[in-house]
Amino acid sequence: MADQEEVKLYGVWSSPFSRRIELALKLKGVPFEYVEEDLSNKSPSLLKYNPVHKKIPVLVHNGKPVAESLVILEYIDETWKNNPILPLDPHERAAARFWASCIDNKIIATAVKVLLCEGEEREVVILEIELDGKDYFFGGVSIGFVEIVGNVVALWFPLTPEVVGVEGWNPKRFTGLLKWVGELQETDVVNESMPPIEKYVAYIRASIQAFKSTPPK
Amino acid sequence: MADQEEVKLYGVWSSPFSRRIELALKLKGVPFEYVEEDLSNKSPSLLKYNPVHKKIPVLVHNGKPVAESLVILEYIDETWKNNPILPLDPHERAAARFWASCIDNKIIATAVKVLLCEGEEREVVILEIELDGKDYFFGGVSIGFVEIVGNVVALWFPLTPEVVGVEGWNPKRFTGLLKWVGELQETDVVNESMPPIEKYVAYIRASIQAFKSTPPK
Repeated sequence: MADQEEVKLYGVWSSPFSRRIELALKLKGVPFEYVEEDLSNKSPSLLKYNPVHKKIPVLVHNGKPVAESLVILEYIDETWKNNPILPLDPHERAAARFWASCIDNKIIATAVKVLLCEGEEREVVILEIELDGKDYFFGGVSIGFVEIVGNVVALWFPLTPEVVGVEGWNPKRFTGLLKWVGELQETDVVNESMPPIEKYVAYIRASIQAFKSTPPK
Repeated sequence: MADQEEVKLYGVWSSPFSRRIELALKLKGVPFEYVEEDLSNKSPSLLKYNPVHKKIPVLVHNGKPVAESLVILEYIDETWKNNPILPLDPHERAAARFWASCIDNKIIATAVKVLLCEGEEREVVILEIELDGKDYFFGGVSIGFVEIVGNVVALWFPLTPEVVGVEGWNPKRFTGLLKWVGELQETDVVNESMPPIEKYVAYIRASIQAFKSTPPK
């Protein structure tokens, strides 16, 4: 790619969806400009670049926007081919995409329910079964697609019980997940892409409080 | 690929998600065995091949399963490289994936709401704006990723008003979508991948009726 190329990421500091794009760009070594959005007062640029959903993250590469975090990850992997984030074998690529979709569509929803004391852990159990007893990352020996997407789990997982105070949730039962999370957190580039932890905990606490004090519609 | 390879598709005749896999395999010219599932009595094979979600469609290629229809489409395009279904340019690929995700996450949900007389048309309007005035398929001159995914819209769109009897829904306002749907339906391989229309209409009518006569929880 040309040296003069312009890469901008529109995100929000507390969003795991924009954090995962930061992580992917750092893994690829792509310099980028980060633009923090205020979701209560979205910038004209964000509205212009993602007119359909008006959501972060949006990656703008040489003036052309790409939206939706999983779509952006595919774009990054196809545009900068060093340090592949998807495995090379088609069947392993499919497995990585399957787990990424499962994390976004099921596991995040489950995590939110657990935080609100309404949830069951079934989908987390499924990821645990997949990870238990394995000593490698999905699709290889280095951080890839599933780790980038699953980093949100890595962020939430250890926080939940002590810090946020959810009863009945015992992460120690999930040895495979804990090991995976632990290995992720030993990686500098992963830690650099995490939000500041105290600010994040305060944000999550405030969000749960706000939800619980909202009367049901 | 080897001549002896075995390709099996587990699907359900009325599901647009398994129909889209059939369409992609036909566009690629890949011979496959189709296995019709009974969702009220799932086969041991389906439960074995998709233990996480236990859902159709599942593609089994030389004994290895791939689940989730968008993941299967990517797998098919990567495994059989003739007649590409995703565009070749990374930015156009991202646009195709964005619209496919929008169809699955927003437009299908909107269509279901419209069928149940509860919906607004906002997401359909967005697709219409994207299509209006254009005389090409997404990403090129031939059927590709968005058409394969959007074929469900092509099936539902003309049915809705007269056949299913939804009030206040006027598809004639959507000239871009109607043209896109019309061009899709002029293609033999698309028509071959459609369910039998009378049986399908009866099925949709029965499903709406069953939903409306179920007391709210």
